[in-house]
Amino acid sequence: MSESFDVVDLIRTKRDHGNLSTAEIDWLVDAYTRGYVGNEQMAAMAMAILLNGMERQEIRDLTLAMIASGERMSFDGLGKVTVDKHSTGGVGDKITLPLMPLVASFGVAVPQLSGRGLGHTGGTLDKLESIPGWRADLTNDEMFAQLRDVGGVICAAGSGLAPADKKLYALRDITGTVEAIPLIASSIMSKKIAEGTDSLVLDVKFGSGAFMVDIEKSRELARTMVDLGNDAGVSTTALLTDMNVPLGLAIGNANEVRESVEVLAGGGPADVVELTIALAKEMLRLAGQPDADVEKALTDGRAMDTWRRVIEAQGGDPDAALPVARETHVVTADRDGVLLTQEALPFGIAAWRLGAGRARAQDPVQHAAGIDLHAKPGDAVKAGQPLFTLSADEPQRFERALEAVEGAWSIGDAADWTPRGPLVAERIE
Amino acid sequence: MSESFDVVDLIRTKRDHGNLSTAEIDWLVDAYTRGYVGNEQMAAMAMAILLNGMERQEIRDLTLAMIASGERMSFDGLGKVTVDKHSTGGVGDKITLPLMPLVASFGVAVPQLSGRGLGHTGGTLDKLESIPGWRADLTNDEMFAQLRDVGGVICAAGSGLAPADKKLYALRDITGTVEAIPLIASSIMSKKIAEGTDSLVLDVKFGSGAFMVDIEKSRELARTMVDLGNDAGVSTTALLTDMNVPLGLAIGNANEVRESVEVLAGGGPADVVELTIALAKEMLRLAGQPDADVEKALTDGRAMDTWRRVIEAQGGDPDAALPVARETHVVTADRDGVLLTQEALPFGIAAWRLGAGRARAQDPVQHAAGIDLHAKPGDAVKAGQPLFTLSADEPQRFERALEAVEGAWSIGDAADWTPRGPLVAERIE
Repeated sequence: MSESFDVVDLIRTKRDHGNLSTAEIDWLVDAYTRGYVGNEQMAAMAMAILLNGMERQEIRDLTLAMIASGERMSFDGLGKVTVDKHSTGGVGDKITLPLMPLVASFGVAVPQLSGRGLGHTGGTLDKLESIPGWRADLTNDEMFAQLRDVGGVICAAGSGLAPADKKLYALRDITGTVEAIPLIASSIMSKKIAEGTDSLVLDVKFGSGAFMVDIEKSRELARTMVDLGNDAGVSTTALLTDMNVPLGLAIGNANEVRESVEVLAGGGPADVVELTIALAKEMLRLAGQPDADVEKALTDGRAMDTWRRVIEAQGGDPDAALPVARETHVVTADRDGVLLTQEALPFGIAAWRLGAGRARAQDPVQHAAGIDLHAKPGDAVKAGQPLFTLSADEPQRFERALEAVEGAWSIGDAADWTPRGPLVAERIE
Repeated sequence: MSESFDVVDLIRTKRDHGNLSTAEIDWLVDAYTRGYVGNEQMAAMAMAILLNGMERQEIRDLTLAMIASGERMSFDGLGKVTVDKHSTGGVGDKITLPLMPLVASFGVAVPQLSGRGLGHTGGTLDKLESIPGWRADLTNDEMFAQLRDVGGVICAAGSGLAPADKKLYALRDITGTVEAIPLIASSIMSKKIAEGTDSLVLDVKFGSGAFMVDIEKSRELARTMVDLGNDAGVSTTALLTDMNVPLGLAIGNANEVRESVEVLAGGGPADVVELTIALAKEMLRLAGQPDADVEKALTDGRAMDTWRRVIEAQGGDPDAALPVARETHVVTADRDGVLLTQEALPFGIAAWRLGAGRARAQDPVQHAAGIDLHAKPGDAVKAGQPLFTLSADEPQRFERALEAVEGAWSIGDAADWTPRGPLVAERIE
């Protein structure tokens, strides 16, 4: 690091709609990681970036600087093509669970370095930890061996990847600066590029249960990340997918694992199957297998076999009973008609309030807590029919969960039903 | 404080161009003062305020909340009208020194609670501390007694006034968020309103040596502060004054005291005299003496008498020799002609580099360091004639000071001379 800058000058540049140079961004990220630039200074910079934006070159520089703040992994010695998937997060989004073994069953290595949930979107590791014995923390050697021998792995991302991002993400969370496309894109992509995957498929959500509500913003985020990945030598594409309604019927942890296993057994809700297949085809296309018969691998047991091997390799018992909540509360239809709405965000918040998610990073989750939906928008329902079931270990949690979903679902006449748009709205490459 | 808020929600509101309520601002300032809201959160808020602005009601609420964070003073028992002056700061701005005794000589109480300099604009206390024995730190009782007995006082503002502002100002200084009109206005006015003065005249500078370069921004700042003062019961007016060229001939500390004493003796540079008289008339008008013969009080020795009494009351010897620098460096004209330009900011920076100012709050200043100008724009000069003299205790300081003024002055033909606009450009009430 030869050059040195005044951080206040850099903040002023961005504040006054200027662009930061490569040298300035390199210095800023390094100085912030070392603690020479303070959190209050980076918070002001983050707000200026959120409000004034960044050019493509600046976002690229920021991503590369965050990668340079930590270690880089490599799967070069694996002898397999690696392909990863990242979702921007949604309600009921358990797609990684059936997707990873499905793609791995085609001889491709699928390294899913995942996180734990915070707020209303669940974390993949939290879901899998409802399986007795399963552990998320693997050494790099264990991960490498499992990718070679089994083909798939879902484990905690090492803290050595992009530590600058880790520090910046924690800061953004408490300073109202999460929703900045340059910062979201560089945060996600710095970790994925540092991980060393050959290719990457992004599932960028839009709609009321997504990070970005508007499809235009999701498209901008997807475009930014796809460009970042390809610029850095990672073959990257993205699907823009609808997150206005919860994905599947299960929202929680153990119940999402159950639903994933149904999909691996050739069943499961239509939307979960559709998205799993769409993402698997995209990943296999990038891995050089554009004609892979993905549907068949779900029905002939190959994907399920890989699932069982992955769970066992990480200490889990694929046949063990999953935890069940001590208390349930059923909500029924108050009239005959058609279920018109079922908004993702309120159901996500309700599941979180039932104990499925955490408010602070150090909190535990309750693996059996969550929501099981019994009808989806467009379904005909009868008065008195169960619409959804809340599950929790503590019955006093029901009241606030019910408050969250108040007004979030509605039953009307069949004439008022408007079919949803496609689940996979666009593809960005 | 009955209500409680989530600071991230408040940051998001301002980030997304919303307005903060009175209760939200009260809570924010109190929580920040107590340390419950962190510096990183307030830095993000300050940047959002700088970029998205605040409505008049929000600025008023912010000012009142900062006043409520500390003690309020009162001059009610004084039996005199109180009138204060505040300048937004400029190069060579020593006006407080002749102005305070001039106005006090009319039986009005002039409480000048002042600060020390930081950066290229000097501090009134730094200038006065070049007088042997003079001390800035008075107790409230000493200040009160001096106002009653002598009529004028210049002393350090107590740390009990608006502590929230003190904390916020230090944060803004390191986060590139100084230049936000709502924050500047509430910072200045919270202290002046908490001080308890009956009336206030603001000297709001514009031009290259001022905080706000554009007169439009200065007008907006002046309008905001005048409204804030009058809304809070302090009769407030403002003059917009030109700060493109240094005020007077002296830039520094001891030399500015010398120049001030010349003005009090009926002499001194025309611009310093003009601005001192304009501000004194404005202050005396607010104090109920619109017809006071201000010019006469400068020439008949009344203002000088008050000056001597004020200096003595604060331990200073008005007849003591002021410090003189060990080294001087004279810059001469390189041709015959007219001095066309003399830019305030570079000369301010040069004086600062000579040791007259400080880079960090804990640094000392060198009282004899500074610049004496021998010509002002519009003056005819001869080749070889001294244009200005640099003074410093350490000769190695000259080089960087000379770098600062390079290109900041120019000599040309008389035909190229354009007279400056009026020193006092506008009055805002």
